[in-house]
Amino acid sequence: MSQTALSLSSRYGGTPPAVTLPALPIFDTLLAHASVRHFLPDALPEQTLPTLLAAAQSAASSSNLQTWSVVAVQSQERRDRLSQLAGNQAHIRQAPLLLVWLADLSRTRRMGEQLQAPVAGTDYLDTFLMSAIDATLAAQNATLAAEALGLGTVYIGGMRNQPEAVAQELGLPPGVFAVFGLVVGHPDPAKPAAIKPRLPQSKVLHHEQYQTPTTLAEEVGDYDAHHRAFQASQGMPIKDWSQQVVERLHGPECLSGRHLLVESLHRMGFPLR
Amino acid sequence: MSQTALSLSSRYGGTPPAVTLPALPIFDTLLAHASVRHFLPDALPEQTLPTLLAAAQSAASSSNLQTWSVVAVQSQERRDRLSQLAGNQAHIRQAPLLLVWLADLSRTRRMGEQLQAPVAGTDYLDTFLMSAIDATLAAQNATLAAEALGLGTVYIGGMRNQPEAVAQELGLPPGVFAVFGLVVGHPDPAKPAAIKPRLPQSKVLHHEQYQTPTTLAEEVGDYDAHHRAFQASQGMPIKDWSQQVVERLHGPECLSGRHLLVESLHRMGFPLR
Repeated sequence: MSQTALSLSSRYGGTPPAVTLPALPIFDTLLAHASVRHFLPDALPEQTLPTLLAAAQSAASSSNLQTWSVVAVQSQERRDRLSQLAGNQAHIRQAPLLLVWLADLSRTRRMGEQLQAPVAGTDYLDTFLMSAIDATLAAQNATLAAEALGLGTVYIGGMRNQPEAVAQELGLPPGVFAVFGLVVGHPDPAKPAAIKPRLPQSKVLHHEQYQTPTTLAEEVGDYDAHHRAFQASQGMPIKDWSQQVVERLHGPECLSGRHLLVESLHRMGFPLR
Repeated sequence: MSQTALSLSSRYGGTPPAVTLPALPIFDTLLAHASVRHFLPDALPEQTLPTLLAAAQSAASSSNLQTWSVVAVQSQERRDRLSQLAGNQAHIRQAPLLLVWLADLSRTRRMGEQLQAPVAGTDYLDTFLMSAIDATLAAQNATLAAEALGLGTVYIGGMRNQPEAVAQELGLPPGVFAVFGLVVGHPDPAKPAAIKPRLPQSKVLHHEQYQTPTTLAEEVGDYDAHHRAFQASQGMPIKDWSQQVVERLHGPECLSGRHLLVESLHRMGFPLR
C-alpha cells in the first residue's frame, strides 16, 4: 500500500472514499497533514523563511490586491509572551518560528494617502473578509511548503483571543489584524502527530444543491465511531465528535475571549460596514 | 534553470529573493500557480472530485470542528445562472466544474438541536471567520491538487456579490454562506495563463514587529515597474499597481454589491455578534 493510500485510509477512519489517489509526491504531502504540537528546539535553516514566503506569495490574491503581510517571530521572549496571549500553548514557546499572518489593509490606506485618493472600500466587512481569505490562502501554501521540507506546523487560532494585545506586541498599525499564527519547527520524533480522521466525503460534498440531513445519523454517518476509535488509539479522553462540537460552541463563554472580536476590530481600524 | 527557478523569477518580476528553492516537485506546483480564465469544455475524469475533496479535508480544521461544506456544480444551466450572479464571468460557464466553498455553521446547529444543546457560539463574528478560514484552507489544498493534476483553477470572489441569490440557487439553509467559488477545468492551451509578479518579499515580511513604511517607494519598492512590464508583456492596459489598488478600493461603489454583506449575512442566519 502506498504512503498516500495509507494516509487516505487514516483520514477517513478506515472507510476511505472509492478513489485511487494519483502517484504524485504532492499527494503524499497533502494527505499526510497532521498538526504538530511537539517540537525540537533546533533552529531552522536560513533558507526556510524565504522559501515559505515564496510559496505563500504564489497563492492567488483577490484582484491581486495583496492585502496581507506576515510577521516572523523568532525571539524567545516574544514567543513566550504571544504564547501567553494565545491560551498558553507550549508549542509556541518550543518551536523556533512563529509566523503571524496579517489581514493588512493599512498598506492600501497608506497608498491612498500617498496618492491622495480615498480608499473607503477598506472600511467594509467584505474587504476585511477578503483580506483574511488571502492571508489564509498564502498561509496554507507556506504550510505545505514546510511539510514538504519535513518540518511540522500547527495553526494558532488562539492568536485571536486577545487581538489588541497581540497587535501591541507586534507593533501593528490600525487596519492590520492577526488572523492566526503558524508555528513552524522540527517535529519531535519521540512524540509523532497522528492523521486525524474527518467526516465522510458524502457528509461534506453536495451535488448541485445543498442537501440538508434530518437525523444525527444522516449528519455524521459512522464518524462519531471513527472519532472515538481515533481518540482511544491516541490515549485521549473519549467523546463523540458531535458532542464535542456542540460543547465547544455552547456559548460565548467557550470562545476564549473571541466573543469580543467585533468591538476589538472596531477599535483596531476596521469599521466592518 | 529549473522550472521552479523560472517560476520564482517570474513571481518576483526579475528580482527574485536570494533563495534556492528545494528540488521537490511540490515547489514546481506551488510556484507555478496562475489563475486560469480560459478553459476547454472537456469533462473531468470521475476521480477528480473525490481526489480534490480528499486533499481539501486533509487541511487543518480549527478544533476539528469541520465547519465547512462544498457544493459541486456541474449543470450547465446552474453554472450559467451563477456566472450571471458573479459579474458574468465567462469561465464559470466554460469550465465543467464550479466548486462553491461554504462556511457551514448549520451542521453544528442541527447537531445542537439533535443533542438538545445550545450552540450560541455559532452566532459570533469570530466563529463565522473561523468557518470561512477553514473553508479557505480546504479550498487551497483542492486548488493545489487540481494544479498538480494539470488542471486549471480560478477563485471566484464574485460569489459574494449577491450572496442571498447564490444561497437560493444552491438551496443553502440559514447559517451557510458561499465564501467563494473555484472554477476547475482543463486549461485552454491556446490561451495560457501567466505567472503574475508579486510584491518583493521585503515588503510583505516583517521581522519581530511590523515596520511601517513612510513613502510610496518604501511601500512597494520596484514593484510598480515590474507590474507595468508584466501588463505590457500580456497586452493588458498599463497602470501602476499602487494606482490600481487604490482605484479598486476607492469606495463602496467599487465593491460590486459586496458593501451590503453585513445586512445579507444578518438575514442569512449569521448575527455576527
